[in-house]
Amino acid sequence: MRQERAERTRAAAVRTTAAEIDLKGYDGTSLSAVSKIAGMSVGALTFHFPSKNDLANAVWQAGQSLLREAVERVAANRTPPLLRVIELSLVIADLMEKETTVRAAIRLSRESHTPSHWSDCWVPEVRRLLSEAHRGGQLSEDTPVEDLTVLVQYLVDGTEAYLRARRDTEQGYGSAAAQLERLWALVLTGVQDAGALGRNPPPARS
Amino acid sequence: MRQERAERTRAAAVRTTAAEIDLKGYDGTSLSAVSKIAGMSVGALTFHFPSKNDLANAVWQAGQSLLREAVERVAANRTPPLLRVIELSLVIADLMEKETTVRAAIRLSRESHTPSHWSDCWVPEVRRLLSEAHRGGQLSEDTPVEDLTVLVQYLVDGTEAYLRARRDTEQGYGSAAAQLERLWALVLTGVQDAGALGRNPPPARS
Repeated sequence: MRQERAERTRAAAVRTTAAEIDLKGYDGTSLSAVSKIAGMSVGALTFHFPSKNDLANAVWQAGQSLLREAVERVAANRTPPLLRVIELSLVIADLMEKETTVRAAIRLSRESHTPSHWSDCWVPEVRRLLSEAHRGGQLSEDTPVEDLTVLVQYLVDGTEAYLRARRDTEQGYGSAAAQLERLWALVLTGVQDAGALGRNPPPARS
Repeated sequence: MRQERAERTRAAAVRTTAAEIDLKGYDGTSLSAVSKIAGMSVGALTFHFPSKNDLANAVWQAGQSLLREAVERVAANRTPPLLRVIELSLVIADLMEKETTVRAAIRLSRESHTPSHWSDCWVPEVRRLLSEAHRGGQLSEDTPVEDLTVLVQYLVDGTEAYLRARRDTEQGYGSAAAQLERLWALVLTGVQDAGALGRNPPPARS
């Protein structure tokens, strides 16, 4: 019973801290603000998490664990590897949109408050799947696996920036995953009219 | 003479503040740290910039003005519009890599400390150029201009995240613009082998 209550207190503290870090970053988050919003005394909060760093670490672990679960789930699919890369990126976009701890973990990583970079838990899997896709003939011959791995990272990072900008304007937009899926359609088939610019675009001053 | 010295002091303060904001964000930046690093008293600093907000605003203006100049320069080129979009993205990548005020302005924008979003000064131009490219037949018929506009934003946002992550690891990487150029090669021609997945990928559980 007492343990259950402690668990609930810890969970509330992590949830509140994640929301604060997501909005204000590590430096903008304070133990006093967290205790106030979570409706607990600073004493109760620091009993469970002695420092802001301990709280931030718990948020990081919570976000990472959701991301790792997603990677394992998609890795277990039987779809062609190129499709699994797309699925993984969409699942991550969805987590970014819906899970405050994931967004907070990413922000902590960008602000260099984490032991590793947040993308370390999924980029190796993307690289592995793309190598497999390349060997299996799903990628065009002249698509370098490493460049496409970077492109996937840019798409995921772009999704995060999109979600942050969207929050600021609060206009009615589609989901992050739906938008990313449309971008994948462009990346898979290419955007230029065949032969419009050619493989080697003309020099800037023609 | 006195005016020149005041100009130098102001420029040093803005430069130092930009470096602090780039690294630590708005909340992590303090007037006392800026005055210490810039080698001026807090009194001298606040004579020119009464508050942190005034300093941040000067950084924002400096970054925005570099970006706006870049947009105007590329807009004046005579290259095909699709190429001009690529050029513009590469120029922005280059500014992000080399100009601290640009990185700081972007960070301020992401942290919602600016009157507008940093991309407002170039996204409309990208949209205009892509519409022109579409009308001119440089884009494949089924490339929606709006989706491609979003993709360009994701590529630019991805570049920023790449530069931040790279700074943390300090490994030897290529320039941001060179990397972005390689990603454009993928986006222009597409990455999948023709017919590998088809326009409609198979359902997830096949």
